[in-house]
Amino acid sequence: MTYCVGMVVDRGLVLMSDTRTNSGVDNISVFRKMFHWSVPGERIVTLMTAGNLATTQAVISVLEERTKAPRDRNHSLLEVPTMFQAAVETGKVLREIVRETQFENGEEGRGRFTASIILAGQIKGMEPRLFLIYPEGNFIEASWDTPFFQIGETKYGRPILIRGYDRQLSFEDAVKLLMVSFDSTLKANLSVGLPLDVMVIERDSFAPTHERRIETNDPYFESVSSGWSEALRSAFHSLPDYSFYQGDERPA
Amino acid sequence: MTYCVGMVVDRGLVLMSDTRTNSGVDNISVFRKMFHWSVPGERIVTLMTAGNLATTQAVISVLEERTKAPRDRNHSLLEVPTMFQAAVETGKVLREIVRETQFENGEEGRGRFTASIILAGQIKGMEPRLFLIYPEGNFIEASWDTPFFQIGETKYGRPILIRGYDRQLSFEDAVKLLMVSFDSTLKANLSVGLPLDVMVIERDSFAPTHERRIETNDPYFESVSSGWSEALRSAFHSLPDYSFYQGDERPA
Repeated sequence: MTYCVGMVVDRGLVLMSDTRTNSGVDNISVFRKMFHWSVPGERIVTLMTAGNLATTQAVISVLEERTKAPRDRNHSLLEVPTMFQAAVETGKVLREIVRETQFENGEEGRGRFTASIILAGQIKGMEPRLFLIYPEGNFIEASWDTPFFQIGETKYGRPILIRGYDRQLSFEDAVKLLMVSFDSTLKANLSVGLPLDVMVIERDSFAPTHERRIETNDPYFESVSSGWSEALRSAFHSLPDYSFYQGDERPA
Repeated sequence: MTYCVGMVVDRGLVLMSDTRTNSGVDNISVFRKMFHWSVPGERIVTLMTAGNLATTQAVISVLEERTKAPRDRNHSLLEVPTMFQAAVETGKVLREIVRETQFENGEEGRGRFTASIILAGQIKGMEPRLFLIYPEGNFIEASWDTPFFQIGETKYGRPILIRGYDRQLSFEDAVKLLMVSFDSTLKANLSVGLPLDVMVIERDSFAPTHERRIETNDPYFESVSSGWSEALRSAFHSLPDYSFYQGDERPA
């Protein structure tokens, strides 16, 4: 499994991904799921992937090759004119690889080898943008109504994102919020695991403003994880108490 | 969909279920998913159901009939000698109904019409017990390592249960904890909906100690729901702040 979140805030983009891949519970490995390409001062394009690892690695390889091979230059993420076109190109590559692998595996391949991608970035003169790309190659874009996307194991970490998100979050608070969301997910699903990759991209900087790998035993992540249990307990006690008797009711 | 939680605490058993059933998003209804049978002073047996509504209603009807028809008396939940036997009997009924409906629908029926059940209760002279029964008729029992079971849409509401559960919880706090868990689920999944049913069974009372339907606009539930957003925000701010620079690192 996987857990990745991409988020737009007023100040820019914040991304976090785990690094665990598994085939069953007895075969786990660490693989990077966050990738980026940039032209300093002009653009940065970041991808996070969830789903079949062979598929996502193939997608990344094709996109990477295009940035180098002159022939496909105009489809390269370093050359497309808009983030929308970057999503179109990425979607096409993803769909083709999924379809091809399914086709080659005949009846057995149906519905397998799929993957999803979060694409985020900014090109000079335009706004930072965030997309969620489906295995079918089509995609949706984040808006202020839905300013973040999750892929992989999305449910455990969603309630805190819904409650805690605010477009005016500082980058530091946005990273903290994502860490709480990841911690809830890690606690509930073994197939999501440390280390985590974090990237912060400030609006109009066209480069990672902050990039870090959060390793196992990272002291800050541990302080969030243990502090959150305590903080939730206080939050819980701050809520009004439930009573068996309400309004006019009285104990018998 | 559905969301039901059964929980064992030192003081006894606490159960909560939603009441929404849906077939698509444009066909929703309210159906009770919590049922109980009791012999005052001797036993109480409670069931909560998730899954195919025709299946769960058939299970409840068969179990209900057995408490009335003399012929099946010895398989009745009011007569079985232990809660373990109550789980065995309920599992058998569930499996038979699922299998029969699948069989009658041939190839199209495969894997459909399934349901899960949480069974909780106490019989005089024995401990309160809590079981999770699978569509295959087998079941697991709660222990102090895993003192609560969820069925239906379990993920959104799980992190707060993991963090907030304590076997010494008062009944009032246990109900409050379940309300927070249900609120997180309601906020994320449209197919889980109010009203909610709550039941509290005090150890050795062999009757519902407290029973209530939480209707839409229930003032207490609304205060938990709105208070929780605020409380989470404070909890979040009480965590240590993230910094781009850690240890010996300094801004460039």
